[in-house]
Amino acid sequence: MENWLTKRAALSPNKVALIYQYTDFTFAELNDTVQLYASKLFNDDIKAGDRVAIFTGNSFNGYIATLAVQQIGAEIVFLNTRLSEDELSFQITDSGAKLVLIDDNLDSSQLKNIDVAKTRMSELLSMDRSDSYQPVAEFDNDAVTTIMYTSGTSGRPKGVLQTFGNHFYSAFGMSLNLRINDEDSWVMTVPMYHISGFSIMMRSLLYGIPVYLIDKFDVDYINKILINERASIISLVPTMLKRCLNDLKPGQNFNSNFRCVFLGGGPIDNWTLLRCQMLEIPVIQSYGMTETCSNVVALNFEDAQRKVGSSGQALFPVQLRIAESDADGIGDIEIKAPNVAKGYLNQPELFAAKMTSDGFYKTGDLGHLDEENFLYINGRKDDMIISGGENIYPEEVENVYAKIDGLESIALVGVPNDDWGQVPVAYITVDSDAFLNGPDLIEYGRNRLAHYKVPREFRLIEAMPLTASGKILRRKLDEVEFEVM
Amino acid sequence: MENWLTKRAALSPNKVALIYQYTDFTFAELNDTVQLYASKLFNDDIKAGDRVAIFTGNSFNGYIATLAVQQIGAEIVFLNTRLSEDELSFQITDSGAKLVLIDDNLDSSQLKNIDVAKTRMSELLSMDRSDSYQPVAEFDNDAVTTIMYTSGTSGRPKGVLQTFGNHFYSAFGMSLNLRINDEDSWVMTVPMYHISGFSIMMRSLLYGIPVYLIDKFDVDYINKILINERASIISLVPTMLKRCLNDLKPGQNFNSNFRCVFLGGGPIDNWTLLRCQMLEIPVIQSYGMTETCSNVVALNFEDAQRKVGSSGQALFPVQLRIAESDADGIGDIEIKAPNVAKGYLNQPELFAAKMTSDGFYKTGDLGHLDEENFLYINGRKDDMIISGGENIYPEEVENVYAKIDGLESIALVGVPNDDWGQVPVAYITVDSDAFLNGPDLIEYGRNRLAHYKVPREFRLIEAMPLTASGKILRRKLDEVEFEVM
Repeated sequence: MENWLTKRAALSPNKVALIYQYTDFTFAELNDTVQLYASKLFNDDIKAGDRVAIFTGNSFNGYIATLAVQQIGAEIVFLNTRLSEDELSFQITDSGAKLVLIDDNLDSSQLKNIDVAKTRMSELLSMDRSDSYQPVAEFDNDAVTTIMYTSGTSGRPKGVLQTFGNHFYSAFGMSLNLRINDEDSWVMTVPMYHISGFSIMMRSLLYGIPVYLIDKFDVDYINKILINERASIISLVPTMLKRCLNDLKPGQNFNSNFRCVFLGGGPIDNWTLLRCQMLEIPVIQSYGMTETCSNVVALNFEDAQRKVGSSGQALFPVQLRIAESDADGIGDIEIKAPNVAKGYLNQPELFAAKMTSDGFYKTGDLGHLDEENFLYINGRKDDMIISGGENIYPEEVENVYAKIDGLESIALVGVPNDDWGQVPVAYITVDSDAFLNGPDLIEYGRNRLAHYKVPREFRLIEAMPLTASGKILRRKLDEVEFEVM
Repeated sequence: MENWLTKRAALSPNKVALIYQYTDFTFAELNDTVQLYASKLFNDDIKAGDRVAIFTGNSFNGYIATLAVQQIGAEIVFLNTRLSEDELSFQITDSGAKLVLIDDNLDSSQLKNIDVAKTRMSELLSMDRSDSYQPVAEFDNDAVTTIMYTSGTSGRPKGVLQTFGNHFYSAFGMSLNLRINDEDSWVMTVPMYHISGFSIMMRSLLYGIPVYLIDKFDVDYINKILINERASIISLVPTMLKRCLNDLKPGQNFNSNFRCVFLGGGPIDNWTLLRCQMLEIPVIQSYGMTETCSNVVALNFEDAQRKVGSSGQALFPVQLRIAESDADGIGDIEIKAPNVAKGYLNQPELFAAKMTSDGFYKTGDLGHLDEENFLYINGRKDDMIISGGENIYPEEVENVYAKIDGLESIALVGVPNDDWGQVPVAYITVDSDAFLNGPDLIEYGRNRLAHYKVPREFRLIEAMPLTASGKILRRKLDEVEFEVM
């Protein structure tokens, strides 16, 4: 297919592409700005096939820089801005990024000591443009365009290789599901470095609809946009939705063009859903992950009321099945779809291990289907915790703490939390002669891990509950007596 | 991707899929009926990879039978029901069809003497179903699903190999252009055996919208549907549109859900467009061909008034360029798109000859782009005539007549016609001692060619106008004195 940005600018030059801080940019203006930026990047020796890491919030510069890297034909490595120096260092090295582009308005102290070329996004603007630069003519469905890192139960984080085809089929499936029309626009407050955010940018190019880009989660500002502007769709995780609802004054509601909250990032409580129903705010629940390049399952409007609690049906391009189900029909969710990623960078064997012999991707999630093939999520096969839309793998956090002298054993679990869905809490046992305390342990974690991964609380216990074979029985931990450290 | 029919039936079982003679069929009912039919075909020894020729009008049985062949994984060979015995015989032999499925309500005398297995569509219904039949699990983008024959300047007709991917990207491009929504439905009166008709069937599965299937062009019946039902889109060729307009009574207009006439099959006159404007009937002009698996260029709603006379912009997945343009910017229209067909059956070299070294398909049409990249068609490089939406290649007709004793030379040209756009007329020179007359020559043609290809009139001239190198100068023929035979 032709380059989506140049094609969209040719098809609808005067339509609004981006709304940032109440300023509109048309697709022609967006394209011109991105190409200028790309030309300067090209002059700075970034070429097709290179990898460029992006360290940005949802800023205008970040939006432009990201699309510019794509226009050159270089691969975008998205960095989660909340990660620690160690975590970022690994991802930058693993990806072989030639350059890190850093958003000016962001604290980037975690990057200071990492040995890689770095450029502030604004610095690039004062550079020369290249005369020989040309945007790529085509977006090849099989070519990788974005790399996003995910953690997991096993060791190192994995760079998920997402192709243009992945993004295309994801956007296609969603357009059928949401019946995108000319009046639609999408509010992007979920981060660009997550697939939930970046996928909005790609949909905008494919559908030709505007993005309201929101640089930080300021609930007052967001509600102003939802109430006073013509915004029609917003992607939210449950934590954000609750804050928006809490901030609504009596009698206030979203604008008349508003169509739905598109909800991802874990389960939502029934009370919040009920509040949305009373306000007549449709909530489209969905299910997806970085490896499936955004959603593979979503509710539709007709069934949103009838199927409360379900994530919906597998989208048009998606095959979904439940493998090894138990007596209640609960089993492993497996996915086959053209939006399943190409693999893990440098660790193809780990991706291969998640594929069945007939080409289905084993999500690691548990779920069941009702008689009409609507999916209900029943948790994780592993012990992943979802906190405010971010995934936390206990093993990764436990490994960081395991190095501490005197800490005998540690087990991380998620405990329910009204604001975040879950928060991580650590149960530990210590040597009798160890001098450890909670605040120090938290400080230790904050120096080495993204803050959302750090246990909120350390709970000292006598002994871990174990299986017959000596493994920790995580689900028994909430029955064990503990003392907060 | 998953099998589109079974997927659609799973996603929206209770939505209307097909409306035939005022009777509704849901996607669940359509799927059940198609699978039953496919099971019987399978029992009749039709397997994946076989080719099955379909000889049908726009009947219910034809609709079901066509989808059933696709469900088995066999390739559909569409036969134009207006072709002569010679023409059909060639296509059936060339395609190696294992079976011809014949619509019961159709005169099929042209097939009588052709040596191939034939089954009436209704006969199959009394056969046994197979217990081992399973529909194909997936529609592979690279797999051929339909074969449609086109004539051309050179010798034999060519079977165009159309893949699932071709149909998919065509439907995707159209959905963005027309902003398909839940309330849409598509009236299918153009024949199923043309890409303009079959593409509606594939869009219905992908978008989940109903098709109004119309079995013959009865203008009274069609207008009833456009006026009294909720039909929103109709594909028409100019001839048909004019008839519908002529049949409207003063004060009558199409229903309030009607969105547009989707117009293909050659140019339309300004008077007809003006009438549509006065009636506030949006006309979306478009451009496409069998080899590009339906439209590659179409107008959109915003520009329909502003760009009257243009076929529109290249659809999202389509790259279009004008090669070797003259001083007025008029040149060869070339297309690169994932909906360009895979090739010609048994004649790959002919398709290869139409491809440029950088992967563009040379359409053989002439056109130019305005400053906003809207396409205007300026005719054909060759001398193809379009009559009522059917393509006629003069060389094919001339070759049939060239065998007649005493007929010295013949040249076919299209002359303007209010009803059909163009009709074919033959200029001939004869030996001085030949006894030929118009009615006999017409009769001769009707026995050997589809009737729409037969010259309406034979015009006797003294001598052909020739180029310096001795080739017939077709465009000078309208200046030559003639006598109607």
